[in-house]
Amino acid sequence: MKAVIYTPNAANTDAWVGRMRALLPDWSINALLEETDPDAVQYAVVWKPQTGAMAQMKNLKAVVSIGAGIDHVLADPELPKHLPIIRTVGEDLTQFMREYVALHVLRHHRDRPQQAAAEARAEWSTVEVPPATRRKVGIMGLGNLGAAAAKTLAGLGFQTLGWTRTRREIDGVTCYAGAGEFDEFLAQSEILVNLLPLTDHTAGILSADLFAKLPKGACLINAARGQHLIEDDLLAALESGQIAQATLDVFTVEPLPEEHPFWAHPAITVTPHIASRIDAETGSRIIAANLAEYERSGAVADLADAKRGY
Amino acid sequence: MKAVIYTPNAANTDAWVGRMRALLPDWSINALLEETDPDAVQYAVVWKPQTGAMAQMKNLKAVVSIGAGIDHVLADPELPKHLPIIRTVGEDLTQFMREYVALHVLRHHRDRPQQAAAEARAEWSTVEVPPATRRKVGIMGLGNLGAAAAKTLAGLGFQTLGWTRTRREIDGVTCYAGAGEFDEFLAQSEILVNLLPLTDHTAGILSADLFAKLPKGACLINAARGQHLIEDDLLAALESGQIAQATLDVFTVEPLPEEHPFWAHPAITVTPHIASRIDAETGSRIIAANLAEYERSGAVADLADAKRGY
Repeated sequence: MKAVIYTPNAANTDAWVGRMRALLPDWSINALLEETDPDAVQYAVVWKPQTGAMAQMKNLKAVVSIGAGIDHVLADPELPKHLPIIRTVGEDLTQFMREYVALHVLRHHRDRPQQAAAEARAEWSTVEVPPATRRKVGIMGLGNLGAAAAKTLAGLGFQTLGWTRTRREIDGVTCYAGAGEFDEFLAQSEILVNLLPLTDHTAGILSADLFAKLPKGACLINAARGQHLIEDDLLAALESGQIAQATLDVFTVEPLPEEHPFWAHPAITVTPHIASRIDAETGSRIIAANLAEYERSGAVADLADAKRGY
Repeated sequence: MKAVIYTPNAANTDAWVGRMRALLPDWSINALLEETDPDAVQYAVVWKPQTGAMAQMKNLKAVVSIGAGIDHVLADPELPKHLPIIRTVGEDLTQFMREYVALHVLRHHRDRPQQAAAEARAEWSTVEVPPATRRKVGIMGLGNLGAAAAKTLAGLGFQTLGWTRTRREIDGVTCYAGAGEFDEFLAQSEILVNLLPLTDHTAGILSADLFAKLPKGACLINAARGQHLIEDDLLAALESGQIAQATLDVFTVEPLPEEHPFWAHPAITVTPHIASRIDAETGSRIIAANLAEYERSGAVADLADAKRGY
């Protein structure tokens, strides 16, 4: 079998190629940009692939997303509609995300931003916050990452709520589903965490309309996709105090441009898309196993639904 | 029965008096400073009491510490040696501490201090850290608070080590005990959390000698007592890079004086003794129950050992 690999960073691509060759010694594996015969390729393993790249490979059996989301694959308008897309979800990806969510929910819960500002003034000032057992945190999206984050927050003692399109059940998490229960979920979420997949239905969901339904002074954490957020609506909600603080890991344009108002905003914490990551070492093992399984059986647990968008 | 209450803050003392009166309507409860007949008092409920206050009450049956530690009671050289001391450990105290430890271990693990510095320069720079499953965190002290913190860290995925004077067993935590196993524990602790009680044996334990036994570039979190730490030794260890970062919640002198070098040190995070607290609402319920139980049976689960010091 022949597979090609693409990531936006050439050195990173080379690392993946080396590991995948070691794991699948019978396969031919190359960097996509070095492949001279697109018709010979059966599998494309990609992160943010270039428009039209997959359309050129006439014998492609499947695309593998180096990540849990497939929006970066579907973003290519020339992508052949029938192509199966395999997601990559591994232990480390889930672990990194639950750490990030725990860290930033705790930061907002314990009011670290205000405390750090007092510290910078050498000011010994205490603000009393309730224990997590009296704090409600809402998670939008309970896929692999969202469910792991929700369980982690419940384990830390938070009153944890979850919201999804179709109903889920998670021990220790109060689950809401569908448009009909969205407002009830939002009205309770003192800290709101977005981990939804990016689809036509969820793009722009973090809007003035949504912010208005949160408790006054809520905090927002977006660790999904920049396109979920309407940036000007967030700035307005921070200005009015409807949102007190926000932590953002993802942006419409990444890297976030130096002149972007988010960087210097006192109520916004910017992190450089580090909430979670798949590294070549562990990721290549998951992807090699998925490729071998898909080639053998024509099926794999992490097959995405392109029509649904995740 | 007659009980008196003392905290360094008069308004806070009044809040406690009000709640304790409501919970123990048959008792006589007053602020210690308003008590005119010390000989009539059977119980003193105190936080950082004044030297000699307890020695004046000739018929005292027990002292209640408004906190898990009893060092602030034992600090009184005039304290009658025979007096039983009852500690106060409640759900909220434990919950607050495990939140604080989780937050600050995650902050150091995910390198928030360096990331926040990059953010202040509008710099999109990522530093790759391992997942918590490949990070070792050591907790000194596995009493109520230390054990809860250790379980919380293990739940977050950290490789969690614990060290105590006498051996403990906690699921998911590798436990070390006594002087003979201390160095082995320290040599692995990439992030070290101090939650020891303050006693003659533990005062000054966070010293150059201890720092030298940690992995190079370790992080330190002290949420126990300021007297555990030799401040100049920490400054030297930060200077040499032996310690990379420290987060300190407790200090020899509190509030930490404005001119203290810790405030402006780029590698030190100062928090104003907020790791955990007992508030009048939940604390008074625990203390009222302990007082009633002690008066009824002469025993209570949270009786401290004054000779041991905790």
